[in-house]
Formats: sequence, structure tokens, C-alpha cells
Amino acid sequence: MAEHVKTIEWVGDLDGCVRMVEQTLLPERFEMLEVRDAATMWDAIKRLAVRGAPAIGIAASMGLVLGVRGHRDADRAAFDAKLAEVADYLASSRPTAVNLFWALERMKRVAGEHAGATSSEVCEVLLREAKLIRDEDARMCRSIGEQGVGLIPQGAGILTHCNAGGLATAEYGTALAPIFLAHEKNNKVRVFADETRPLLQGSRLTAWELGRAGVDVTVICDNMAAQLMKRGEVDLVITGADRIAANGDAANKIGTYSLAVLAHAHEIPFYVAAPSSTFDFATATGDDIPIEERDADEIRRGFGKLTAPADVKCHSPAFDVTPARFIRALITEKGVISPVNRENIAELLLA
Amino acid sequence: MAEHVKTIEWVGDLDGCVRMVEQTLLPERFEMLEVRDAATMWDAIKRLAVRGAPAIGIAASMGLVLGVRGHRDADRAAFDAKLAEVADYLASSRPTAVNLFWALERMKRVAGEHAGATSSEVCEVLLREAKLIRDEDARMCRSIGEQGVGLIPQGAGILTHCNAGGLATAEYGTALAPIFLAHEKNNKVRVFADETRPLLQGSRLTAWELGRAGVDVTVICDNMAAQLMKRGEVDLVITGADRIAANGDAANKIGTYSLAVLAHAHEIPFYVAAPSSTFDFATATGDDIPIEERDADEIRRGFGKLTAPADVKCHSPAFDVTPARFIRALITEKGVISPVNRENIAELLLA
Repeated sequence: MAEHVKTIEWVGDLDGCVRMVEQTLLPERFEMLEVRDAATMWDAIKRLAVRGAPAIGIAASMGLVLGVRGHRDADRAAFDAKLAEVADYLASSRPTAVNLFWALERMKRVAGEHAGATSSEVCEVLLREAKLIRDEDARMCRSIGEQGVGLIPQGAGILTHCNAGGLATAEYGTALAPIFLAHEKNNKVRVFADETRPLLQGSRLTAWELGRAGVDVTVICDNMAAQLMKRGEVDLVITGADRIAANGDAANKIGTYSLAVLAHAHEIPFYVAAPSSTFDFATATGDDIPIEERDADEIRRGFGKLTAPADVKCHSPAFDVTPARFIRALITEKGVISPVNRENIAELLLA
Repeated sequence: MAEHVKTIEWVGDLDGCVRMVEQTLLPERFEMLEVRDAATMWDAIKRLAVRGAPAIGIAASMGLVLGVRGHRDADRAAFDAKLAEVADYLASSRPTAVNLFWALERMKRVAGEHAGATSSEVCEVLLREAKLIRDEDARMCRSIGEQGVGLIPQGAGILTHCNAGGLATAEYGTALAPIFLAHEKNNKVRVFADETRPLLQGSRLTAWELGRAGVDVTVICDNMAAQLMKRGEVDLVITGADRIAANGDAANKIGTYSLAVLAHAHEIPFYVAAPSSTFDFATATGDDIPIEERDADEIRRGFGKLTAPADVKCHSPAFDVTPARFIRALITEKGVISPVNRENIAELLLA
């Protein structure tokens, strides 16, 4: 694969820090943020300095280490209480992406599996696990790319939404992984990146990282997608997901459902790419996925400038849910699921 | 009707000026712009200080007076040549809205009907005609409101796109006219205003003028419309149009086609409101409507801030075309056309 930015990594030993791309500054400035405590990590997740379901899972697991390492001299009971407290705290940063909870649960489980170890030893175990989550994510993304690349015809026009690229994961991305791989195999794809209001992850992040990798990319406003489809310029749509219910309904960035309906109306295949950690078997259908409501000022003053009456009401859900029937296939690191239904998902992922 | 801003009017006699709302400053500042020559009017139309199909028709007719009044002492042949030159010049400001060409043609025709008059007399005739176009527009909008108000159920959730309100016309608006009238009749409608990227006419203008009139309005990003429809919050969609072909295909602000497809998929009626001057019988279908491409920086730097890589390609059509089959009814000052087809349009408007 092409060289990718290391979106998030742990630097040094247990007394080190987390270094991650400060995504709110892109594309104007490319800066790394160094995070040394759990509160700063909570804030970084909340304000979207790090975002994307897999990346916030990694951020949370590393944030948990930051939050407990100061207690490595405490006795285990006190340490475990602190661990639970910091995990709950980090889990409160954002409600929709399941990878956040998945990563924190996994960290707590690993600590539990080392019941006889000292607090200091558990700290080292947790750091190893957080790094492992990061490395596994990088490998999973690469596998998603390999699973999905066959779905992309030569020279295809591909529409994507938000950022499900390297910046949303450890390195390669989910929705963008098959695109990066197609590009490496010299498939001259043309990518259309929805700018993705209100926070413009598509124009700020996806266009930036695709352009950096030499992929042909064109930015459009979200409301232009249908017209491109009508003109025959879109051969397929591919997005990531923040949580996929047991039946295949997928929560993703607001605007995804709109694209799925439009793709269906134009008979264009609509794919969702996500690692198995994004599937939530405890959530039966999309109706049960909690949807985060964001601050109205992200719409009214999203660009440092007043773009609506200062006191006007806004509706600003961060995500929407696309019913499984609109998804041609789910692309996971373990394989491609199609048709999308409870049975096929369980067969591939729970077997 | 409620008191509305006078979006554009001629002030004083032939040596007066055009006073209009400087719409690029809203909602931060409400300022009037005084225009005294044709070049300033061309520029005001181009940069969307005045916008909306009916309003730019009025602006062009008044701009024509500004461009020729300095030649009132010339002989008629020289005056008429100047008139044709200024009309061509103003017609080059924007390509899609047919009202622009319609208004300029009407002005030239009136000059032609006064072949025996002096240049000075024709100047007065032209000023009267431009004022008449403005006054007729105000009356037409009121009639559109009366024709359309019956389509709005009690307490309806109404989605609109861009600005087809008082700011797009002389006073009352096209798409917003039935809404204003419903509000006056104490129908507690709830309006959702798409912010309408890239230039945000929905959040900057529609939300501003509805709020000012006391109508319940909520701003959403364009990509949130589908999710609102899915939640059952939208009972109808109503937009304006910039040009309607003989078969009923309607060009309007980019994103309108998307809403029409989404409304169709959710079985929600989709209405287009426009005066008869927006119909172009010389254009057979929507495929023949020229679509203006706007500058990429309106997407990349639309908020005075870089929101995409500085050199990334953008696709920025100002308009799209909604096929007649997605339009439940066309609301004109002369009546409601439904089903929308060539025969029904001709019967109402060409009879």
C-alpha cells in the first residue's frame, strides 16, 4: 500500500504519550497532537480531533492507559476501581460508534484476565493491548481493502461520504482501503468526495488523503450527489460505518442514508466497509442505535463565521441509519457479506 | 400578508437609482445596496447580491434603464443600438434563470412598440415597464400563495431548499408565498430550511426571512433531509424554480433533484412554485437547459476559510434539473398544474 499517515500511535514506553493527527486543523495545517492524560483524550474525541469509529476505539484504549498509569503503585483493588472509572469516563465522550465501547470492554477484560498481576504489571499489559488494537486495526483495514477491491470495476466513478480513510483508522481506512488498493493496482478510479456538512470531513480529510496518495479526487457538496448519479458518473458508492446492528442496518455519518436511497433509485450499488469490531450483535436493528445530536453552532457558525441567524433552531444529528435492504454488500476483513441479513452476518462473523 | 422587505425597488425618477438588499451580507448584516449603473448591476447579479429567478429579472430590467438613461439625448438609432448592447451585456451575467432573458426581451419589445418616440421618451417608458415588472411580480407571488395555500395541511412539516422567498422576488416569494399565507391564516406549520451549500441561501436567507415573519423554522444541512423524511417529519416539499421546460422539467438550485428523488422514495409530495415567466416554452425538456458551473472556490473557501485542499478539483453546478415525473404539482399565479405534463402546462399558461 502507499505510504499512509500514522493517524494515531503510542510513542515510547509506559511513560510516553499518544501522538495523533490534529484533524480539526486539516487541510490548512498538518500538525500532530501529543496527548498525555485521559481528560485531554476525552476532549480530543469529543471535539473530533480524532474521529472515525476504528480510530476512536484505539484512542479510547490508549486514553485508558493514560488515565490509569499514574496509579500503578496503588493496590489492585484501587487500581481496578480507577480503571472502571476512567473507562466509564472515556465511554461518555461519544455515544454512537460501537468501537469505542468495544475497545474499552476489551481492555477491562484483559485486565481481569491478569487478576494476579500487580497494578504496575497490568499497566504494561494494558499498554501492550492498546498497541495491539492499533496494529490489528491496521491489518484489518488492509484485509478490508483486499476483500473489497474486486468490487471496483476498472476506471470506476466512486462516491464516498465523510472520511472512512486512514485518518479514521490506524492507517489505511475502511471505505478507502479498497480504493487505495485499486489505485495501487493501477486501476484509474475517479473518486467523488462529499464534503460532508457540517464538519466537512470529506473535503477536509478524504480529499486531502486521497490527493496525497495520488488518487483522482473531486470534491462535491452533499446536495450534488444525486445529479452526478443521474449523469451516470457514479458506478458505486462506498462508505464506512460507526455501528452495524445484528440485522445489517448501519449507522454512519449523517447523509449516508440519503446516499443509499439515491443510489437505490439510480440502481447504483451501495457498499459499507467496516471491521468486525463495528458490528454490535447486542443491537437487534438500526432503530436501537442511539444517535448523537451535535451542537447547533456547528451548523450556524461552523466556519468561524455566522452562516445562519444566530438564534435559529437547528437539527443536527451526527449520524443516520441505513436499512440493510439498501446495502448491496458489507465489506469486512473476514469477507464480503451479500445479501445483507442477520443470517449471513452471523455466519461470517460469529462462526 | 405580513410585512416583507422590499428586496428591490427603483427610487426616485429616471435619474434615481435601484435600491436592493445586499444579500451576500445576510444574516450578519442587513444592508441596502444602491446601484446606479449597468456594470454594477451585472456584478450584483453575478456575485448573487441579488438572486432568485424573479428578482434577477427585475434587476436586469432596472439595470437596462440604468445602462441607457445616459443616452437619452442620442438619436433613436443610436439609442436602440445601445439598448441592444446593454441588454446583451446584462444577459451574460447568469445563464440558467429564464426570467432574466424574459425581462430583457420584454423591455426591448416595449421600446420597439414606441418606434416613433424620442430616446428620452423611451427612457421613461422603459422605467415605467421595469417598475411594472416589479409590481406584477409582487402580485404574481401573492397569487402563487393563494393558489398554493390549499396544498398545505394543518400543522404540516414543510421542507424547502435554497431561497425562493421574498428575497428571491419583489416581495413575497414563490415557494415561501403559500407558507407565509398559511402562517397568516394561523396554520402552525413547521418549516425545515436546507442550508443549501455552497452559498447557504437557505440558512442565510430563508431562515432569516421566515424567522423575521414569525414562522417556526429549523435549519438543517442538506444531507439531513432524507433522515427527517424517514422520521416522518416532512409532510411536503416545496421549492422554487429558475426555468421550467415545456414538459414540466424544472431547473432549480443544486440539490433540488436530490430532494425530489428522496421525496418520491418516501411518498412525500414535492411541489414547485413559480410564476408563468419562469416557464420557457422554447425549451422542450430539462436536457436543453444550460447549467451554470460556479467557481470551485465557492466550495473550497466558501466561508472565508480553507475547507478543502487549496488545489483540489471541485464540481460545482449551480442548478440541477428535476424531471416532471417527480413533481406532484406546479403552483403558478394562474393555477395549480397536476399532473405535470406538456398538455396541462400549455392548457393553463398558453390558453
